[in-house]
Amino acid sequence: MGWEDKVRKVVPYTPGEQPKAADVVKLNTNENPYPPSPAVAEAAARIAAETDRLRLYPDPKISDLVNAIADVYGVRRDEVFVGVGSDDVLAMLFMTFFNSDKPILFPDITYSFYDVWADMLRIPYEKVPLDEHFHIRPGDYKRENGGIVIANPNAPTGALLPLTAIEEIVAANPDSVVIVDEAYVDFNGVTALPLLDRYDNLVITQTFSKSRSMAGLRIGYAFGNAPLIKYLNDVKYSFNSYTMSWPAILMGTAEVLDTEHFGDNCRKIVRTRAKTTERLRTLGFCLEDSCSNFVFATHPRVSAKEIFDYLRANNIFVRWFNQDRIREYLRISIGTDADMDRFFAVLTPFLQEKGAL
Amino acid sequence: MGWEDKVRKVVPYTPGEQPKAADVVKLNTNENPYPPSPAVAEAAARIAAETDRLRLYPDPKISDLVNAIADVYGVRRDEVFVGVGSDDVLAMLFMTFFNSDKPILFPDITYSFYDVWADMLRIPYEKVPLDEHFHIRPGDYKRENGGIVIANPNAPTGALLPLTAIEEIVAANPDSVVIVDEAYVDFNGVTALPLLDRYDNLVITQTFSKSRSMAGLRIGYAFGNAPLIKYLNDVKYSFNSYTMSWPAILMGTAEVLDTEHFGDNCRKIVRTRAKTTERLRTLGFCLEDSCSNFVFATHPRVSAKEIFDYLRANNIFVRWFNQDRIREYLRISIGTDADMDRFFAVLTPFLQEKGAL
Repeated sequence: MGWEDKVRKVVPYTPGEQPKAADVVKLNTNENPYPPSPAVAEAAARIAAETDRLRLYPDPKISDLVNAIADVYGVRRDEVFVGVGSDDVLAMLFMTFFNSDKPILFPDITYSFYDVWADMLRIPYEKVPLDEHFHIRPGDYKRENGGIVIANPNAPTGALLPLTAIEEIVAANPDSVVIVDEAYVDFNGVTALPLLDRYDNLVITQTFSKSRSMAGLRIGYAFGNAPLIKYLNDVKYSFNSYTMSWPAILMGTAEVLDTEHFGDNCRKIVRTRAKTTERLRTLGFCLEDSCSNFVFATHPRVSAKEIFDYLRANNIFVRWFNQDRIREYLRISIGTDADMDRFFAVLTPFLQEKGAL
Repeated sequence: MGWEDKVRKVVPYTPGEQPKAADVVKLNTNENPYPPSPAVAEAAARIAAETDRLRLYPDPKISDLVNAIADVYGVRRDEVFVGVGSDDVLAMLFMTFFNSDKPILFPDITYSFYDVWADMLRIPYEKVPLDEHFHIRPGDYKRENGGIVIANPNAPTGALLPLTAIEEIVAANPDSVVIVDEAYVDFNGVTALPLLDRYDNLVITQTFSKSRSMAGLRIGYAFGNAPLIKYLNDVKYSFNSYTMSWPAILMGTAEVLDTEHFGDNCRKIVRTRAKTTERLRTLGFCLEDSCSNFVFATHPRVSAKEIFDYLRANNIFVRWFNQDRIREYLRISIGTDADMDRFFAVLTPFLQEKGAL
């Protein structure tokens, strides 16, 4: 007996490494290689000039940021929820909507935080295997369940499920909330936003950490019908009334309103992704076209772990998952063209040396 | 049947009003009337100059801030936990340590978020009545329980429990985690930090929102023995890997290292509190000496609600709780001397008009 008997004991999520060395090419956590909007620097300058304002609590309703997102995406303000990164949004969604004895469903290969949340919150779950091409089969999600989570584009595969397939899943599950996690949607994905008016059980999450170049600020958001967002906010206000700092609200609002800079950044990454995909194929890698800011590639002649270790030893960080079915794959974030040149400058001679070219 | 059957339905915490009018004297949410350290403005200027850095994830271990807090308070680095305000820290503590069928215990009159967390997380609880002077009786906490939370100084009373009484409670409960919520400790309270080495079931929470003038940045922290902090971090990393933004880490670290500015601010508030207490007594209010940055006062001849409404109509915001036992009390945050002059300039003629002077 002792206080440790009352502890919620969990195995936490392992985030990608954040190396502190300066001269690193960091292609391991899907960060954006380009800076956020210049309007963010202006907002930051205002914060520096008005630090006195920090003594006050921020707006608990996060109105400026919620309104900006609603306006830019053309939805109603009561259809938007904002949290401390989309991980916070997803954790709140799990807490709010996955409260039954039935298992929630998500793919066996997907964002590796879903089962961590389910375990931590004691939500029963079943991992639904992707098909042999690592694609989601909508038919697998047509059975009794406690809720559904689909990342689209999926991670770490980068594969996109067409909107018709998403709709099929949402329509087949009126008794469950279906979360579509669109962390990577802005790199030529297809958002489920047009379905929002027709399905009250759909919720879509997005993030500032990838396409908006602001992983360091911690902002994520969700779209859903107003009653669903109200339930979500009730749980959020029962957890922490003031999650979003004043600086985050100010800088986040500045970013979301600069739609032109945002579009330019996304297009640059899509262009570099196409070139990277081509170059990897030239080196013998097998990979599908990605709809995200990373590619997911395997080499038929050299083990992924070996490539991963060699790159890492040369200050090139990519992501390798020690996990069934994908142990021979690398997830490589798309950096600048210069980042990718450095990546290939290390990778190519290594493959030559291994006799793989 | 429908997705709403699987919803966690809760009644959220109601934070104090955040009026948007400019000419308001805001004495309702215990904010600090003085700005944070000038070092915070320097940190903010660095953020404005380096917004490119926002594209990267922040340090998930929050090392700079954790280390600064550890160094300033003279504890080990593995004895410190940091979260998004002390509300986030407390929510994580409830999730991590209150997992039994036995009720957790906290006073009937205390921070009104404790029962919201317990309800939301489905933790059984019992509210233990304060004595007739609104003081905690340590003997009430010597029975089987699932955990204990004590705010010290307590809110909204401002009453301080001596360290010997805190130790009595902690020592009597080796099988439960005892949380001592020290949100207001820096205004002449007494911290339980010296007990940390002797009791592995003790955890202490503090915040940047009151004494450190940074409610707008959302930083709270906890002290506990290393194994306890490890359990807490495991749950936190199972909820959200990156809770603290890079700007919050940078500005928070700057603030905590400026111990001189911090001490000056606290002393100013303690001085104004003494004057305010005296002036309220002169007007006929009954109130005990407070050890926090607010006072808790009742007038024997005029109803608290009536005073609250009149002040509010005149742009003076204080806090009134529509709650048994304390319905005739007002919680008045300590502002600058000028804020309190404006408060009394409205209050005094009102009491005269009511024939209460």
